[in-house]
Amino acid sequence: MKKFLSQFSNWPISIKIIVSFAFAMFVGSLILAMPFSQLETSQATYFDHLFGAISMVAVTGLSTVPVAQTYNLFGQIVTLVLIKLGGLGLITIVSAIIMQFGRQVSMKEEITLQQALNRNDMKGFRHFLLNVVKYTTIFEALGAFIFMFKFIPLFGWGTGIFNSIFLSISAFNNAGFDNLGTSSLQDFVAMPVVNIVVPVLIILGGIGFSVWFDVAKHFKQFRSAKSWLDIKGTYRHLTLHSRLVIKWSLMLILAAMVIFTLAEWTNPDSLGGLSFSGKIQAIFFQAVTLRTAGFSTLNFAEFHMFTLVAFTVFMFIGGSPGGTAGGAKTSTVALVVKLIVTEIKGLTNINYKNRTLEMDIIKRALVIVVMFILLNFIALSLMTIFDEDVPLQYLFFETVSAFGTVGLSANLTATLSRYSQTVIMFCMFIGRIGPITIFTALGNRDRRKRDIKYATGSILIG
Amino acid sequence: MKKFLSQFSNWPISIKIIVSFAFAMFVGSLILAMPFSQLETSQATYFDHLFGAISMVAVTGLSTVPVAQTYNLFGQIVTLVLIKLGGLGLITIVSAIIMQFGRQVSMKEEITLQQALNRNDMKGFRHFLLNVVKYTTIFEALGAFIFMFKFIPLFGWGTGIFNSIFLSISAFNNAGFDNLGTSSLQDFVAMPVVNIVVPVLIILGGIGFSVWFDVAKHFKQFRSAKSWLDIKGTYRHLTLHSRLVIKWSLMLILAAMVIFTLAEWTNPDSLGGLSFSGKIQAIFFQAVTLRTAGFSTLNFAEFHMFTLVAFTVFMFIGGSPGGTAGGAKTSTVALVVKLIVTEIKGLTNINYKNRTLEMDIIKRALVIVVMFILLNFIALSLMTIFDEDVPLQYLFFETVSAFGTVGLSANLTATLSRYSQTVIMFCMFIGRIGPITIFTALGNRDRRKRDIKYATGSILIG
Ligand SMILES: [K+]
Ligand SMILES: [K+]
Repeated sequence: MKKFLSQFSNWPISIKIIVSFAFAMFVGSLILAMPFSQLETSQATYFDHLFGAISMVAVTGLSTVPVAQTYNLFGQIVTLVLIKLGGLGLITIVSAIIMQFGRQVSMKEEITLQQALNRNDMKGFRHFLLNVVKYTTIFEALGAFIFMFKFIPLFGWGTGIFNSIFLSISAFNNAGFDNLGTSSLQDFVAMPVVNIVVPVLIILGGIGFSVWFDVAKHFKQFRSAKSWLDIKGTYRHLTLHSRLVIKWSLMLILAAMVIFTLAEWTNPDSLGGLSFSGKIQAIFFQAVTLRTAGFSTLNFAEFHMFTLVAFTVFMFIGGSPGGTAGGAKTSTVALVVKLIVTEIKGLTNINYKNRTLEMDIIKRALVIVVMFILLNFIALSLMTIFDEDVPLQYLFFETVSAFGTVGLSANLTATLSRYSQTVIMFCMFIGRIGPITIFTALGNRDRRKRDIKYATGSILIG
Repeated sequence: MKKFLSQFSNWPISIKIIVSFAFAMFVGSLILAMPFSQLETSQATYFDHLFGAISMVAVTGLSTVPVAQTYNLFGQIVTLVLIKLGGLGLITIVSAIIMQFGRQVSMKEEITLQQALNRNDMKGFRHFLLNVVKYTTIFEALGAFIFMFKFIPLFGWGTGIFNSIFLSISAFNNAGFDNLGTSSLQDFVAMPVVNIVVPVLIILGGIGFSVWFDVAKHFKQFRSAKSWLDIKGTYRHLTLHSRLVIKWSLMLILAAMVIFTLAEWTNPDSLGGLSFSGKIQAIFFQAVTLRTAGFSTLNFAEFHMFTLVAFTVFMFIGGSPGGTAGGAKTSTVALVVKLIVTEIKGLTNINYKNRTLEMDIIKRALVIVVMFILLNFIALSLMTIFDEDVPLQYLFFETVSAFGTVGLSANLTATLSRYSQTVIMFCMFIGRIGPITIFTALGNRDRRKRDIKYATGSILIG
């Protein structure tokens, strides 16, 4: 064991991350498969537990069996642990391993870690980690506390408190799991507490830790602001990254709300049947959950084909980097959009707020987007072989949901063939590990040696 | 009129191209709508003629009414003229206009023209154009001559000769139109002449003029080659571009054949019913036609969902630049693949055959691919609103087919709503004009003035 650990510490850090994730998923599936984790009425096979464990660590939320009808209290606690592991990222554990072995982080590994964490500097990394854990716990505790006011009257003391904690952790980690039943949060479609607190937790978890600390650094200034102008002035002191991410997150939520309103307002099977205030709540909730949370208060199988297709864009983009959300990430897509706009204008430098962005990062953003599209497409093609009778829009929605670790489904996951479910497992795993980690995993060997520059060659395109 | 022409000559050349294409489509639609162009039994409305004219000039081949049952001999000749205009590209005409006005091509316009034509140098441009017209005519005449051996016995002298010319021009220009009936070339599924000559014409038209001339330049060497090694040696003297394009064209045809064989070999409604030799012919024909020709010898509506979804990749990629084919283009996609592979390897320079490729062209290739995907997606989303009852895979196949100016359809075009048909018209137009022309159209005004370089800013992605 000691020998293994010492060997493990010599692996490239990106491989460590992948192996750790896979290990957590596997161990999780074994524990969930034990009789002492399950209700006596559980019908789940090992495949279901493996699917669930992958989905939990990948904080996706898709599942072939409902948590509430499969796992007992112990099993549900295991679920929470797996979600926490996935949400904070095994990165934390990996870096802890490194520190424990008293080994200095090498320059190359430092860069990988930065990329994995999406942090710009490694100074005070331990301090950063402690802060992440601290604030995460505070937010989750606050969320749980508020839910208790509704859930204790509903479920009684014990279950009420536990369900509140479960929902809060799941929401903050963008996990999308619940232990309330088989239809996500559809029973709470018009309960304001759920429709405000859950989205707030989702957004806080998904915006990325670096944005928190940036905002926290300017918190005093924000608090002492006396006018809208003061707030705007302070906002300008945030990092380029924070501003880009905040702007895009707002834009995407608004865009999803507009599209959802236009498409579903009169659909009797979705928004049509709700009161005005219920409609507004449901529109807001669904727009936020798309950004990789995965809870739903409406039945997605009843939406128009257009709504499902349009929603894939938001699931594809997902949340912001360095948080609990999945997807290609807001900033990645923002850079791609900036590049396209720059090209259309016939300009060369890609600028944002009086700063020119590095071509290297733009190129990487483009590659991530194209890779994501490609992998999504391959997964979808495979599923059309295995489940030919399912309408394509449901299969499409399901793959994008799995890749973005969103967890929304048109009630499809459980009814898919085992082959397609296996495809979905891979999608969730790859979606969570993230393209950057994979790139680095494959690419950080003898980089300089093979990097040859020849005379320039020319190819015609277009 | 003279005033208009003199004003026209001052426009940026990319705008000229767009306006000329639109003008040809509009005039074409008017002529086709005249009673003297149509059969007495024609039921077509002006919308159908407009759709047809756009499809002809965009050399797509989708249509809402069959040519054979709508247009008389004169109308069919108009069809051929529109296809020739689209296939050679109005670029020719535009450059003729420029020359006629005795105006020197400015440096900036020269670059645009190069991009539009995908030629590396403008020396001997007139000579190049003449050669293009000459060889195009030779290939079309040869094709028509061979078809006559089959078509004269089948249709009699007059109709046989005309139909041979029609099919040859349509095939060479990757137009996909036929004047034989309502089911493309399905009657000829097992006729070797059609299954060899049509694909050869498609490939010759779609490989790009620059590749022809490159191969022609080394023709003597190829002819005097005494061994496989000699051929390989001469092949190495071809330009980087020619080799990339030839390799990718072969690879794509082979890949499409393998996928089609695996997916449809036993499907009784497609390959299953054919003899062994019929199967081989149909597999080859369908693999080639995907690369934006648009003829079919099988009923695409009978294919598996998987086949349709997988085929969209080939239609998306399309043919090679600077020829009659559409799509994102082989070389564009090849560069994107090279970039992704380079990133995965963790390298910086993108190399091909001992040459390093310019980052500028790679960036543009990525933008074209992402733009194409985006536009395809928008078009598809719109069609899901207007034709909600059509299975998504048929709508998806139709949009990609229109964008790539492929012209294949799961028998859908005529039955779509007018709204969706309008979307298809835009797809064909944009697909033919090509993203580069659009970029240049939007981007070539006061380029230097606004191109500001700021201090470097940093954004976290992934
Ligand atoms: K999720
Ligand atoms: K075509």
